[in-house]
Amino acid sequence: MNQISLESLNAADRGSFIAALGEVMEHAPWVAEVVYAARPFASLAALYRAMIDAVLKGGDARKLALINGHPELAVKALDSLTADSAAEQGGAGLDRLTPEELAAFQRLNEAYRSKFGIPFIICVRRHGRDSILRNFRQRLENDAATERDAALAEIFRIAALRLDLRVTAPDRLKVHGSLSTHVLDTSGGCPATDIAIELCEIPASGAARILARMTTNADGRTDQPLIAGRPVPIGSYELRFAVGDYFKRRGGVVSDPPFLGVVPVRFGVSEPEGHYHVPLLITPWSYATYRGS
Amino acid sequence: MNQISLESLNAADRGSFIAALGEVMEHAPWVAEVVYAARPFASLAALYRAMIDAVLKGGDARKLALINGHPELAVKALDSLTADSAAEQGGAGLDRLTPEELAAFQRLNEAYRSKFGIPFIICVRRHGRDSILRNFRQRLENDAATERDAALAEIFRIAALRLDLRVTAPDRLKVHGSLSTHVLDTSGGCPATDIAIELCEIPASGAARILARMTTNADGRTDQPLIAGRPVPIGSYELRFAVGDYFKRRGGVVSDPPFLGVVPVRFGVSEPEGHYHVPLLITPWSYATYRGS
Amino acid sequence: MNQISLESLNAADRGSFIAALGEVMEHAPWVAEVVYAARPFASLAALYRAMIDAVLKGGDARKLALINGHPELAVKALDSLTADSAAEQGGAGLDRLTPEELAAFQRLNEAYRSKFGIPFIICVRRHGRDSILRNFRQRLENDAATERDAALAEIFRIAALRLDLRVTAPDRLKVHGSLSTHVLDTSGGCPATDIAIELCEIPASGAARILARMTTNADGRTDQPLIAGRPVPIGSYELRFAVGDYFKRRGGVVSDPPFLGVVPVRFGVSEPEGHYHVPLLITPWSYATYRGS
Amino acid sequence: MNQISLESLNAADRGSFIAALGEVMEHAPWVAEVVYAARPFASLAALYRAMIDAVLKGGDARKLALINGHPELAVKALDSLTADSAAEQGGAGLDRLTPEELAAFQRLNEAYRSKFGIPFIICVRRHGRDSILRNFRQRLENDAATERDAALAEIFRIAALRLDLRVTAPDRLKVHGSLSTHVLDTSGGCPATDIAIELCEIPASGAARILARMTTNADGRTDQPLIAGRPVPIGSYELRFAVGDYFKRRGGVVSDPPFLGVVPVRFGVSEPEGHYHVPLLITPWSYATYRGS
Repeated sequence: MNQISLESLNAADRGSFIAALGEVMEHAPWVAEVVYAARPFASLAALYRAMIDAVLKGGDARKLALINGHPELAVKALDSLTADSAAEQGGAGLDRLTPEELAAFQRLNEAYRSKFGIPFIICVRRHGRDSILRNFRQRLENDAATERDAALAEIFRIAALRLDLRVTAPDRLKVHGSLSTHVLDTSGGCPATDIAIELCEIPASGAARILARMTTNADGRTDQPLIAGRPVPIGSYELRFAVGDYFKRRGGVVSDPPFLGVVPVRFGVSEPEGHYHVPLLITPWSYATYRGS
Repeated sequence: MNQISLESLNAADRGSFIAALGEVMEHAPWVAEVVYAARPFASLAALYRAMIDAVLKGGDARKLALINGHPELAVKALDSLTADSAAEQGGAGLDRLTPEELAAFQRLNEAYRSKFGIPFIICVRRHGRDSILRNFRQRLENDAATERDAALAEIFRIAALRLDLRVTAPDRLKVHGSLSTHVLDTSGGCPATDIAIELCEIPASGAARILARMTTNADGRTDQPLIAGRPVPIGSYELRFAVGDYFKRRGGVVSDPPFLGVVPVRFGVSEPEGHYHVPLLITPWSYATYRGS
Repeated sequence: MNQISLESLNAADRGSFIAALGEVMEHAPWVAEVVYAARPFASLAALYRAMIDAVLKGGDARKLALINGHPELAVKALDSLTADSAAEQGGAGLDRLTPEELAAFQRLNEAYRSKFGIPFIICVRRHGRDSILRNFRQRLENDAATERDAALAEIFRIAALRLDLRVTAPDRLKVHGSLSTHVLDTSGGCPATDIAIELCEIPASGAARILARMTTNADGRTDQPLIAGRPVPIGSYELRFAVGDYFKRRGGVVSDPPFLGVVPVRFGVSEPEGHYHVPLLITPWSYATYRGS
Repeated sequence: MNQISLESLNAADRGSFIAALGEVMEHAPWVAEVVYAARPFASLAALYRAMIDAVLKGGDARKLALINGHPELAVKALDSLTADSAAEQGGAGLDRLTPEELAAFQRLNEAYRSKFGIPFIICVRRHGRDSILRNFRQRLENDAATERDAALAEIFRIAALRLDLRVTAPDRLKVHGSLSTHVLDTSGGCPATDIAIELCEIPASGAARILARMTTNADGRTDQPLIAGRPVPIGSYELRFAVGDYFKRRGGVVSDPPFLGVVPVRFGVSEPEGHYHVPLLITPWSYATYRGS
């Protein structure tokens, strides 16, 4: 997707403007048309706010059409979705469902549509599969007005992420979280370097899935955050630190197997836009971890 | 198995004495016969020492016969073993091998017998399956004299455990280790009570196996140690503490999922006769663990 | 003071009974006389309860006399006090006051007596000097009825401690707290032995005062608790651990001065009957402490 | 003192150049004259290296004169020293000596001059008073050649710091250390804000001296490092964190006094050019600290 600067967007003609922002709201280029009239925008936040206001003032029919323009989760072939939707659903692992899971989604989709008359909408970039299913089941208990509002709220979250991808600006929307770590060797009073780290997603059932592999640098950190530049999907994670190999290289420990080999640190993420800094303080015989800042 | 006191054993006639101790050394009741003459024994340690000395002074032929009287690991039907051997091998999980694992053991047994002319002997109560396999492979690299000595050393370890089971005495042989824990809520300054704990064995490959389930009491400890009264088999373990449920009951934490749900603490055991105390200090956002005392 | 068993007390004649318990309530042997009639007592708690009930049912005149029978704090020569009062006040450091502190106590005593018509009574064994002064000032703000009740409550605390000193019984009154520690070397995975420890009292102003010096044993604990068999006076304390010397002996650390030399752990005690276990987890470059159990 | 950029220095005429750098080596403007010929300097490090080389190649007589050009410690009135020396000695507290301490310095000065024939030279900005005295006593045990070398090494350290003060350049000499902290509330999973912190110097004898007072910001750090832009003098320090006030403001703790009021963290500095990051992890009932990175 081509990125455009806010400055260029403010200077663009009507056609280019709509071409750039038409898909921010799924199948609803009229939103871009409405906000075109309000140029220039002093900030990305102002542009985003204008798009939300356009929807909120757009009348019930247009709101309903916007909601109904969204695909159901997991059930369509990805190539029948808009490029945005396909990328979003694939990112959440909805393209890797087992037949049983697919069937579960289909039943939920049907139950939801049958109860509320609209598709279930959720900003999948903010969720893991377990979290989508849990939300799905919880929201099925709501009443229709609540779900109409919930659908719009999720559409606005989706729009914020799409806008963030498309438009560069001096300000940023607060749509990204991060996950980072830092390993300190408190028996040596120094950063723990060259520690192999795996980041895994821990599903409610089934096997852990490795999301990233990194190694600590001279400062005990990873050169890049484990997750950055996107929301951290709600869910359960495990960092696995190869602590035993580190102390073996340092030459101090002789027990076989060592007391600490691979140290798993399991934690839950509930705020996709939050900063999760999860340090590890290690000795050959102890460790401590905490949510840092 | 009937237990007998050291006092009764010291007073027993020859037949009863040999009946009680004849199987301490596998298929070698002559060891019991030899030590019978040295009664009475001031302590269990003295009796054990006498049995070892009897073997060491018994001559090469008898030592070799003693070694050859031991079964190979894993390959015989358990009901063809002595009761002691069957219980020991079953305890180490050698009765739960997959066909591939069984084949691996058979290949190792053959390689070992073909190189050294004796069966591979190891005190299986001190080991998990991975640790037996690792020892097997390492010891195959040794020379014959080293392995003759290793076989006797393992036979003496087996004998110590069998003696400990059969004879009660004021003194005890140092053949047992222990595993215990203690959970403290450092955000509340109090023991963490009613925390569900699972103890799992973590094999080098394949799924974790739950060995015990316990719950912390009013002092943050388990009423019984997780392992006691036997060696702690060499291997890798994981304690899983249901910390999230604890703080949910305390009413303080609202994030969903919580930052800490189940806290896994993974550690290796290298000294089966060691005391492994593995405490956990928790808050809703941090924890620390260490090998305690 | 001679101790007497509850059994002997239950069997004692009137004179011996009153001789044993007459001073439990200051200058009020009539309380012992009243409870004499209720013998035998199934437990020390029952005897204590009976003495309290005797006071509470004794009528206003006797209660007031009991209150007025108590000495004022700090102002009398210790040898004019009952032996109990002298020992109690001396234990709280009221015999070591500077002229300024003595004057402060006299002003408070006068203000209190002038407002309430009774002496200020507090169970000094449960307090340090700062805590007595703070209580004194706070209680001066109360009304007369509140202070009448407070005086009796303190008299009952004093009585419980006196009873505990005089009478041995299978049960104990909950009048004692304790202070203990445990030092673990988490860089070595073992208890930290031979660590010199000082326990100091930290006054609100003025210099720290050393209360005890101990050394950790093979298990990283002190052979005796730092405080036991008495209340832990409310106040501020500091444990000072000679961690630098320990690691110097272990031979691992070279920096001069070491990062950690003497580690001070400062904490407040608010429950004199509480169990304060204050462990220290150390490496040459880090430490952690917490209220344990 | 006026600062000059390396660029201007490279372009300066002889007189200005010597005026700028003449006092970098105490009473030895000839060093600046020698290096003037080697202009331009690509970096501050190159200029510094050139000054050292000029001294090392300057011949024994000039070296000895350079050494003898330095004042003795502590004994002269500060206003008889060069401005640099006066500022340096005052910074180390040598202008606050008691008569006894002054006498001790005089005895050491005399002993040193009598043994080696030169004044005792040490880069006082890298030391606290205790550390100067300890070095003084240790170096008195050396032989003359060792001390001749030690004197030059200290002169070069002094020169590096003076050069760093006078000349701005894209590169910096590694002459500064730092001291910083970070307070995390691990019971709340957040930075601990508005915590009052005192940094104290802890002398071997006598009272602690407060060096700085700061308060943690929204990230749990201080806006400025506690020490930066200069060496951290070798010595013993204490950080005092007003943890009790923090938790009192948060409303959670009720015990009076609190278990944790002011938390003292005492540590030694042995590398004046090191980065000392000393974080504190707190709950109302526990804390941990370590040398971080």
